[in-house]
Amino acid sequence: MPDPVPDNAVPQNPVPQNPVLFNAVDLIRAKRDGLRLTDAQIRWLITAYAGGPAGGQLPDEQMSALLMAIYFRGLDRAELRTWTAAMVDSGERLDLSGAGRPTVDKHSTGGVGDKVSLILAPLVASCGAAVPQLSGRGLGHTGGTLDKLESIPGYRTALSPGEMLAVLRQAGCVICAAGPGLAPADRQLYALRDVTGTVESIPLIASSIMSKKIAEGTAALVLDVKVGSGAFMRDVADARRLAQTMMALGEEHGVSTSAVLTSMDTPLGRCVGNALEVEEAVATLAGDGPPDLVEVVLALAAEMLRLAGIDADPAAALADGRALATYRTMVAAQGGDPDAPLPQAAARRLVPAPESGWLGRLDARVVGEAAWRLGAGRARKEDPVSAAAGVRCLAKPGEQVTRGQPVLELLADDEARFGRALEALAGGIEVSPGPPPAAGSLVIEYPICDNG
Amino acid sequence: MPDPVPDNAVPQNPVPQNPVLFNAVDLIRAKRDGLRLTDAQIRWLITAYAGGPAGGQLPDEQMSALLMAIYFRGLDRAELRTWTAAMVDSGERLDLSGAGRPTVDKHSTGGVGDKVSLILAPLVASCGAAVPQLSGRGLGHTGGTLDKLESIPGYRTALSPGEMLAVLRQAGCVICAAGPGLAPADRQLYALRDVTGTVESIPLIASSIMSKKIAEGTAALVLDVKVGSGAFMRDVADARRLAQTMMALGEEHGVSTSAVLTSMDTPLGRCVGNALEVEEAVATLAGDGPPDLVEVVLALAAEMLRLAGIDADPAAALADGRALATYRTMVAAQGGDPDAPLPQAAARRLVPAPESGWLGRLDARVVGEAAWRLGAGRARKEDPVSAAAGVRCLAKPGEQVTRGQPVLELLADDEARFGRALEALAGGIEVSPGPPPAAGSLVIEYPICDNG
Repeated sequence: MPDPVPDNAVPQNPVPQNPVLFNAVDLIRAKRDGLRLTDAQIRWLITAYAGGPAGGQLPDEQMSALLMAIYFRGLDRAELRTWTAAMVDSGERLDLSGAGRPTVDKHSTGGVGDKVSLILAPLVASCGAAVPQLSGRGLGHTGGTLDKLESIPGYRTALSPGEMLAVLRQAGCVICAAGPGLAPADRQLYALRDVTGTVESIPLIASSIMSKKIAEGTAALVLDVKVGSGAFMRDVADARRLAQTMMALGEEHGVSTSAVLTSMDTPLGRCVGNALEVEEAVATLAGDGPPDLVEVVLALAAEMLRLAGIDADPAAALADGRALATYRTMVAAQGGDPDAPLPQAAARRLVPAPESGWLGRLDARVVGEAAWRLGAGRARKEDPVSAAAGVRCLAKPGEQVTRGQPVLELLADDEARFGRALEALAGGIEVSPGPPPAAGSLVIEYPICDNG
Repeated sequence: MPDPVPDNAVPQNPVPQNPVLFNAVDLIRAKRDGLRLTDAQIRWLITAYAGGPAGGQLPDEQMSALLMAIYFRGLDRAELRTWTAAMVDSGERLDLSGAGRPTVDKHSTGGVGDKVSLILAPLVASCGAAVPQLSGRGLGHTGGTLDKLESIPGYRTALSPGEMLAVLRQAGCVICAAGPGLAPADRQLYALRDVTGTVESIPLIASSIMSKKIAEGTAALVLDVKVGSGAFMRDVADARRLAQTMMALGEEHGVSTSAVLTSMDTPLGRCVGNALEVEEAVATLAGDGPPDLVEVVLALAAEMLRLAGIDADPAAALADGRALATYRTMVAAQGGDPDAPLPQAAARRLVPAPESGWLGRLDARVVGEAAWRLGAGRARKEDPVSAAAGVRCLAKPGEQVTRGQPVLELLADDEARFGRALEALAGGIEVSPGPPPAAGSLVIEYPICDNG
């Protein structure tokens, strides 16, 4: 956080000498008509919107029109670099040199059952890196890492930069919320995009993610870009384009960045829900994880260690208990009790296989939606989430099932939740008469940074 | 205006039983993605935005994102019909059956020196029609009819519906402001479009113009769609598309509508400015108008009389003083003194021809911009305008000039205005060594209504 200004100090005034440098309508029209915005224009727009001494000149209705024009016209590489830099410069940039080890972080674009961060951060830290993982909360059908960790009694996600650095030095990793001082322009822009139908724009997504990661001060970053029915990106070409856009932004801002595209057509692991995913993450840290989850974790860990310049075997760190020990240190350092029992659901309901055969499809989006309706997720930012609610996948695609055998276990705080969750599941479970083709690797590709 | 609700009355509640019928973000995304909005969705959007008992659910930032999506995706014929109908239904629709004659109105998309309404309304009324001309104020380089008439001492433009009908019955024509009860949704939407770069959209322009004209209750309407440097539409294809869109909307709402495309590359007549244009309009009504202005007035008058089913010769009504007498009756009925001297400018400046030859180009936009900077127009809706400021064109394209001979007379309330007006004129006046090709008719075409 910035130091408060002492009473007798004269704050520097960044307002340009001529306060009427640009006209917002001219700039909206320029972008609308496909013209390039200059660096000075972009910096003015972000500053005028996101506050600060020169801010407040650009109201929401002008920014939302601009965002929709950007949705249609895009931002070219130079525009996007400046747009992102202006978002970073709207707040502070953390200095993690005090961590004493190479820093490397991971970002996931979000999936169903995606508890990878809970495992990956302690795993990579246990191999010698420092992992400053600033995470978010869930909105919609994908869960949020902070919501999951908050199901651990006592776990604190709101840390000051000083506390964050202290946990990082002690445990080698920290998983907490991005403080209000990091890229505050992104917070404001994201809230506006959320209500104006302007979320789904690759440059806006890329600048939102990367501004936070650049401000957090990590030296390296691995992006887990999910592709499939349960992911934000439905096809590989879009996911690759998003990955390459973010990689270029990272490199331009001095963050060594690589990406992995991974498949998100069915839930990752067997558990979807906050406490349920913590439970599965702990099992995985103890060497007893489901194979799909372990595959993704090890692929990302290898990439993070490569960027951090550390030669270590992450599979060994899972097997020998080092990763789990690091996790327990981190949880305790953030106020949580790693031995405390997790919240249990008051209501349970089994979903049987509709016929006998092989489970062909267990759609990630459908399961995510069901977990959301059971209470694991929120519709609006202000909503609380249930720690115990969620879905346990008792069978996964490729497994044989007999008619009536339970394939899903639904968990909720309240029986009343089951009706709408069952509705959401309609059509998401398919049983085929023969075995489906063997599932391949979940790792789709490692996109090459397009430095063009 | 609607009657006020008596204290003991129970107002009807138009709120749907289920108040959460639609989600604004879903509708913005649907339009953004090129999907059709249904009638119910469009009606919900306009009602939610424009107030009334069910209103206020759609804030400016959501509507401006939707407007930008409409800018890119358009509205199809059915969407536009409903959008316009919802705007009409946001207020009252006047009943002009009490006028006792066929009603016919004219709308111009705006040009420089466009004082046509001041002549046309009394001219067509003097031929037997009733002309209920609801007009607007100028914004930017084109003047507004109400601003011009308000340079007449005493002239009132704010009339209640009852007063409007009384003037219409007495004089056969009325030129006043659209009251707050007519298409209030348009007022709100236009103010938002103005600050969000979403003015330049054919469906949004068409719905804005036509919602007001439909609500005003006229049975017939002639559209003067201007094309050229001084007009909103720069090319004939766009102007034709706008004309056809408005004609279809008029017919769909029971208003017999036709259009004339007219040229707007140089100012119409010789005067640009409020009192200056009233002066030129009176001269034209007295049979002494400049030929270009008279041509446009007679073409539009013929079209209006045709739609009204009246067989009369408007040229005769100009020549024999009937039109002027009607004008004087209307001005007096609206509180103005037709014999009062008009405001005179305190400062004058002559602009000489830069060389000898023929005046080849006298650019409408440039002259409009100069008049605007002299004080005849406003930058913001709240700004006052000068009655006396403006530009008198002492020479028009095609006329021979000698170096140093004055071609323009600039008029302002204050010498300080001349500097920026002269800057605006740079490049707008061209003298050629030989005579330019003879100017053709200002009437470009009569578009055919596209009922497809």
